[in-house]
Amino acid sequence: MSITTIPDIVVGRLPIYLRALNFLAAEGREITSSQELGDRLGISSAQIRKDLSHFGEFGKQGTGYDIAFLREQLQRILQIDQIWDVALVGAGDLGHALAHYGGFAGRGFRIVAVFDNDPAKIGQNLANLVIQDNQSLGSVVLAQGIRVALIATPASGAQSVADILVNSGVKAILNYAPITLTVPHGVRVQYIDPVVHLQRMTFYL
Amino acid sequence: MSITTIPDIVVGRLPIYLRALNFLAAEGREITSSQELGDRLGISSAQIRKDLSHFGEFGKQGTGYDIAFLREQLQRILQIDQIWDVALVGAGDLGHALAHYGGFAGRGFRIVAVFDNDPAKIGQNLANLVIQDNQSLGSVVLAQGIRVALIATPASGAQSVADILVNSGVKAILNYAPITLTVPHGVRVQYIDPVVHLQRMTFYL
Repeated sequence: MSITTIPDIVVGRLPIYLRALNFLAAEGREITSSQELGDRLGISSAQIRKDLSHFGEFGKQGTGYDIAFLREQLQRILQIDQIWDVALVGAGDLGHALAHYGGFAGRGFRIVAVFDNDPAKIGQNLANLVIQDNQSLGSVVLAQGIRVALIATPASGAQSVADILVNSGVKAILNYAPITLTVPHGVRVQYIDPVVHLQRMTFYL
Repeated sequence: MSITTIPDIVVGRLPIYLRALNFLAAEGREITSSQELGDRLGISSAQIRKDLSHFGEFGKQGTGYDIAFLREQLQRILQIDQIWDVALVGAGDLGHALAHYGGFAGRGFRIVAVFDNDPAKIGQNLANLVIQDNQSLGSVVLAQGIRVALIATPASGAQSVADILVNSGVKAILNYAPITLTVPHGVRVQYIDPVVHLQRMTFYL
């Protein structure tokens, strides 16, 4: 299969499937079905089977999916069968929350460097890391070969941070700042926007 | 149209369309097309037209969408042509970040009450609100008729907070705690999970 033939929206559902499989595994389950996954996720079982069929044949008609096997396959497809080093830019409230977030471990990511431009924060410890000066962001990211970054700065500083990250080799940015970033082709940006999730729910109220 | 006939996955895309329209409007644009929206969002123009067709006829063949009109219609459909009062539970790093988040204003939501169970935090000010004791969560939510809540507590406390919220009339919960909540039918939960976004990008690295 070629990456370019897979719709991005399908790729976007794979982590959701993986998370559901993780939950099932944590419950001690070994086998599941597209029907059960679909019920849990609010996605049709046909959609799930179709999505997975882009990548191979993971279940048997009538016996469902082996959870451990499908987890491994999804981890491989998503390239999180390795650990990605992550740079965190912004050591404010949100940066602190992210540095202490327990959800990265075991899911493919670890924060290895934290940056801020506030002299009062630079040199302080945060979650076993020393907060570094934004001035050294580019050189550190380059030297450590970091390709994934979290932007947790105010909106006003986010684009210039993104520019430095991109120029230093970062290819994937998760942006919490409430602005749209401009990045060159080949660099991916995802946005964390709580309002999008809230609006999805008020539809039903 | 009946709410039950619209797939949830379609509903989930409407806030994304609305955000893109907001960006276009901020750029001073008045007209757009499903093609342009699709290019910006990585969604096919056919999908966008099909999604919107569930709710009515918003564009004219050959002339595209009037951005102001389509924004209004999406706001009406998503029921954010009103302001929803929101309770924030958890006044730690993440709670502080959310209380100060500039993205709620003008998009249908305002945080009107903040709660924590830490005696050192209760009574302190946070973004012009006084942090209240979790003990009064149920009574305040009930008295103020709050139906939307953000959970920004540690994982260990999130389910009991959700139970209180649900028993007090909350129907929509945005959960930042890294656990799956159990809620009764008729209550919606969405999750903020940065790892899902990161995994979606590592696929391409």
